[in-house]
Amino acid sequence: MVQNQWAKPEFDANGDVRVSAFTLPLSGLVSEEAAAFQRMRATMPMFDAGGGVETDIAVRREQINAYAAQGVARLRQAFAVDTVSTTIGGVAVIDVTPADGGHDPDRVLINLHGGAFSMGWDGIALMEAIPIAAMGRYRVVTVNYRMAPEHRHPAGVEDVAAVYAALLQDYAPGRIGIYGGSAGGALTAQAAAWLPAHGLPQAGAVGIFGAGGVPFHAGESAYVAGYIDGSFPPPAVNGITLDDITRGYFAACDPRDASAWPGYHVDVLAAFPPTLIITGTRAMDLSPAIFTNSQLIKAGVRSTLIVGESMGHCYHYQIDLPEGRDAVAAILAFFRENLV
Amino acid sequence: MVQNQWAKPEFDANGDVRVSAFTLPLSGLVSEEAAAFQRMRATMPMFDAGGGVETDIAVRREQINAYAAQGVARLRQAFAVDTVSTTIGGVAVIDVTPADGGHDPDRVLINLHGGAFSMGWDGIALMEAIPIAAMGRYRVVTVNYRMAPEHRHPAGVEDVAAVYAALLQDYAPGRIGIYGGSAGGALTAQAAAWLPAHGLPQAGAVGIFGAGGVPFHAGESAYVAGYIDGSFPPPAVNGITLDDITRGYFAACDPRDASAWPGYHVDVLAAFPPTLIITGTRAMDLSPAIFTNSQLIKAGVRSTLIVGESMGHCYHYQIDLPEGRDAVAAILAFFRENLV
Repeated sequence: MVQNQWAKPEFDANGDVRVSAFTLPLSGLVSEEAAAFQRMRATMPMFDAGGGVETDIAVRREQINAYAAQGVARLRQAFAVDTVSTTIGGVAVIDVTPADGGHDPDRVLINLHGGAFSMGWDGIALMEAIPIAAMGRYRVVTVNYRMAPEHRHPAGVEDVAAVYAALLQDYAPGRIGIYGGSAGGALTAQAAAWLPAHGLPQAGAVGIFGAGGVPFHAGESAYVAGYIDGSFPPPAVNGITLDDITRGYFAACDPRDASAWPGYHVDVLAAFPPTLIITGTRAMDLSPAIFTNSQLIKAGVRSTLIVGESMGHCYHYQIDLPEGRDAVAAILAFFRENLV
Repeated sequence: MVQNQWAKPEFDANGDVRVSAFTLPLSGLVSEEAAAFQRMRATMPMFDAGGGVETDIAVRREQINAYAAQGVARLRQAFAVDTVSTTIGGVAVIDVTPADGGHDPDRVLINLHGGAFSMGWDGIALMEAIPIAAMGRYRVVTVNYRMAPEHRHPAGVEDVAAVYAALLQDYAPGRIGIYGGSAGGALTAQAAAWLPAHGLPQAGAVGIFGAGGVPFHAGESAYVAGYIDGSFPPPAVNGITLDDITRGYFAACDPRDASAWPGYHVDVLAAFPPTLIITGTRAMDLSPAIFTNSQLIKAGVRSTLIVGESMGHCYHYQIDLPEGRDAVAAILAFFRENLV
């Protein structure tokens, strides 16, 4: 009977699952535009996400900025924003506001950019800040936090806290939101742990996108996404662990350090404000994201989780897709509801 | 460089992904007990979920009850409950309450059992009702709704509505919750669509577990789970679509009928009450669940999504695992918060 004729997984005594080769059909739950994107992948070069590909960090940062430049140019065309490079709390930031000046004067969002704790300034920062500032009519302060290899944790979250503390002179804490994608999402979780632990009032709401409060390689999704999506390599290939793409940012930390990875610590999570987490079924960050959501709910925190069908890492960047626009709309509705 | 040496997926021009064989290591984000369970799977016979295996429905129903009997016996040992078979609104139900009588007198939960719209009464019904009644100190009314092959949609949801309407004589609608697992989760979504469409007040809160408001085979998870978990076959093998395990329950419906599959209809979802959705990364229902959550959020409904790391279909049944107990605790906290 055909019910029993598929290539079932085999379970090893150590808990590993040996998965056979299979064909994953196009999902019936994606938009026409997302379906077209999936079909187009047959003709696209695979995005090269391996952080170890280029060992010179300065060159690698330029590569990422060059990759982001097209997207930033398109965003600047689509959205009229003012971008002012300045310093807040002694930390370099770019202040992004709608060009017509019509932003909410009582609320501010802090953006923490992605880029594996070692790159992403300022291309990814602008990609993350511009649509939220323009569509949400918010002032978005995107932070040039310290990164590896020059710096190590907690340098980045210290910088975030310095910016936040300075903004408290002008904004009520409940009206400050913090959000970020990828490494910036993990850093957002670190900030939500850091602020109450250092005598600062908690922010009003935080958005953790394409990440969680535990390492990206902690769960099963880094493997599953490596094989069904392929945008990022699995953590290990043939028993060889891949290079650390954070370039040692957490090298001095205990692997479960509460300030680096609050997702492991329900008592730390209990101090989080309302949290929005966004990930996708084909995202390497699925497991860190959904695990952190489960632990936040266990801690009694109002955590809202969105998992995009067939979506990959940080699909909220893809505002040319309905799924990406829905994610941005959910982000804005979330801050609207929670920064009261 | 090792970053580029893994077997990447290949994308076909029709959007299919050809996934190579790979080893999925035990997740670092599961409890010790869940890890032990994963390791034990090497020695366990694969649970046979294929609905077409036994074609005689009476025999199949007995098989499922025999499968559930051990679990029900364990639950009856662990939890002292009274179970009374009766009729409410003309529909057969079992009324489950804590044996000491100490349940919330002002609130009631309606349980809709799993079993592919064709089986599950009353073994799965008791499995779903007993722990919630005992741990939550709720009266739980579990419903013997009409099923296939004898009946077709909307017979089941009509029965749910009849029970609900009768309970309105004793309870405020905002103090009635509805929940169910698997087919019962999908039926819960149907009920939340049905009540306001038929002039009944909306329930206070609904719990959709191991399911969503779209068909189980609608998204990519039915394939991914078939190959990484194996508890249920993928929807098609070698191009051959498998037997309909609902035995024709939806045979007369349009595939996007709003009363059967409200998840496709944002306007219908907009009338949902606060909703809790529980699924797992290895569950065949992951895509229906997460898609329905995304659409509920788009509709402005407060939807809370929990995705269990490495968890399979209806892992909230597994209260011998910390993950299953956390899921039950989340269910109870959800009804506590929303049935006000």
